[in-house]
Amino acid sequence: MDVFYMKKALELARKGAGKVNPNPMVGAVIVKDDEIIGEGFHEFYGGPHAEVNALSSAVESVEGSTVYVTLEPCHHYGKTPPCVDALIRNKVARVVIGQKDPNPLVAGKSISKLLEHGIEVEVGILEEECKKLNEVFNKFIVTKEPFIVLKSAISLDGKIATHTGESKWITGKEAREEVQELRNSLSGIMVGVDTVIMDNPLLTCRIPNGRNPKRIIVDSNLRIPLDSKVLEVNEDSHCIIATTQKAPKEKVDILRNSGVEVIILPENDGKVSLKNLVVELGRKNIDGILLEGGGTLNYSALKEGIIDKVQYYISPKIIGGKDAKTSVEGDGVNRIEECFRLNEVTTKVIGEDILVEGYIKEGGY
Amino acid sequence: MDVFYMKKALELARKGAGKVNPNPMVGAVIVKDDEIIGEGFHEFYGGPHAEVNALSSAVESVEGSTVYVTLEPCHHYGKTPPCVDALIRNKVARVVIGQKDPNPLVAGKSISKLLEHGIEVEVGILEEECKKLNEVFNKFIVTKEPFIVLKSAISLDGKIATHTGESKWITGKEAREEVQELRNSLSGIMVGVDTVIMDNPLLTCRIPNGRNPKRIIVDSNLRIPLDSKVLEVNEDSHCIIATTQKAPKEKVDILRNSGVEVIILPENDGKVSLKNLVVELGRKNIDGILLEGGGTLNYSALKEGIIDKVQYYISPKIIGGKDAKTSVEGDGVNRIEECFRLNEVTTKVIGEDILVEGYIKEGGY
Repeated sequence: MDVFYMKKALELARKGAGKVNPNPMVGAVIVKDDEIIGEGFHEFYGGPHAEVNALSSAVESVEGSTVYVTLEPCHHYGKTPPCVDALIRNKVARVVIGQKDPNPLVAGKSISKLLEHGIEVEVGILEEECKKLNEVFNKFIVTKEPFIVLKSAISLDGKIATHTGESKWITGKEAREEVQELRNSLSGIMVGVDTVIMDNPLLTCRIPNGRNPKRIIVDSNLRIPLDSKVLEVNEDSHCIIATTQKAPKEKVDILRNSGVEVIILPENDGKVSLKNLVVELGRKNIDGILLEGGGTLNYSALKEGIIDKVQYYISPKIIGGKDAKTSVEGDGVNRIEECFRLNEVTTKVIGEDILVEGYIKEGGY
Repeated sequence: MDVFYMKKALELARKGAGKVNPNPMVGAVIVKDDEIIGEGFHEFYGGPHAEVNALSSAVESVEGSTVYVTLEPCHHYGKTPPCVDALIRNKVARVVIGQKDPNPLVAGKSISKLLEHGIEVEVGILEEECKKLNEVFNKFIVTKEPFIVLKSAISLDGKIATHTGESKWITGKEAREEVQELRNSLSGIMVGVDTVIMDNPLLTCRIPNGRNPKRIIVDSNLRIPLDSKVLEVNEDSHCIIATTQKAPKEKVDILRNSGVEVIILPENDGKVSLKNLVVELGRKNIDGILLEGGGTLNYSALKEGIIDKVQYYISPKIIGGKDAKTSVEGDGVNRIEECFRLNEVTTKVIGEDILVEGYIKEGGY
């Protein structure tokens, strides 16, 4: 039954997607005499935690109950008081935890405190699912750098457009909808300036009531056309351009005056240092980024080691073309043994397409 | 139980892979009182058919038994007398057939004959599996042209080699072993001359006691180096070079004198007309061909409409490179809507890789 209730808690946690960053998604379920008597999740950034919401939703006394929570309850005073104290105060009998706190400085502290107060504790129920749910948070809380997902939509023969540049649409409706979900849940979206010049995308989330990710354009020479759609600023969309000292000063000023954030960063091989960029973006509380190519930026990102996860939506069609663009270009590796290998690979059919995903770093976060 | 015994018959049929071309693989099981009393399969080209082998293996009288056979028994005198007569003569009670004869001229004739002799007949048990088993035969018997499988081994980002040309190995051991099985079961293997120049492959089947496919090199200008490994002729390997009038006469003579078959074909866009080539290969009783690229030949083959099936072995690694070769090059299509779409797509995990396969023609054979 522990697995059953933890699944329920996971479902609740997911409702916070896109609303709690850079905090974790957390769900909690309170069970007494085999009945759910309360449930809650972390609903928005700065709002009450899942445990508190679950406790206050309880339809009867929680004394002697079991609390299922996807993440170890917090131990510190942040935007809200420590949840571990609320559980102790309410005299729950047992706490079942999915994942320990990923922060090595506090991991296990709440567990010890619960045990000291005579509360039974079980840790690691559906641990993998709980960890995966918060892979963005798990990295960010420890490294202060964003978790970066390289996403690409390709034909079976690896093309992201025809040789004439047409790319709408390679993948089907279901796959494209899933990408919109990603844009809703991650706090940033990153493209290279060539993609802006070529496709002139909006890079917004098209889900009703969805949240727009911060748009990050990597543009080492500040070549972005001033009438690009990504530069249209409104209260719900924010555009950051990462450039270098090579950017013309006047253009920087024009952009800044129009409300666009321009960050000037050190160079790496004549281009924006992506390592410096991610540190900077982490400082701005951007905890997760969807990297949507093109091939030059994707290769630089892999080479500079900033990619955590890779997601390829593969459409079973063949485009062909020696000059048709592919998802990862640049120089590429010289030898097969130097390639970027994916770990923990999973494959899933999404509508008419196939999603292959995996992690660049072994073990993940 | 019909499905159970037909599965058994299918298993038997598969044992003929690579040995019966251009005849079909067929398996037969004889059942009496819920016990298998005989079984057989078509073992080699020109040899006795599955039904005959099953009848002669029977451990008791087959009178009153049920015969399961993956393909409608033959009706004509070919290399052996008609199997339908053997079944009637042996007074079997019931015949369960997987697939009707694919040849529209004879389909159903044996079924009628069995019924006329008071034998119960059931058709279409595991029909899809039975048809798929003989997709090569099903096309060849009707069109007299080979069934062509475009096979490619790519990285997740669609590369078939690094930009330096290294391609060993992109896919893992299991996937490569499966390709050897394909080489064993199809009667021909086709590559472009650029692949011969670049990789100098043997194109043989490396399965112990496996059969080497006939090696077909498409070489419009006869640029093949005379010391290429594919030209090493021995009794078990045969090399066919398809070229045009542009081939230097002396080189044609040298090759022919060394035992290589050189076919001079009409041109299409300055290259070997692949449509003419497949007609020619069909005349030589080559019923199935594994097309192993490169990108130029693969694109021409798709464009000329000679591809039946596509098999992509995708390795979850990223190679990158603007100049790294991809599996389908040439001009490529101009618009997404003109692309080559796969039908009946299936996805399978093979070792560390992913196999995506499908059919170019809707409905298949």
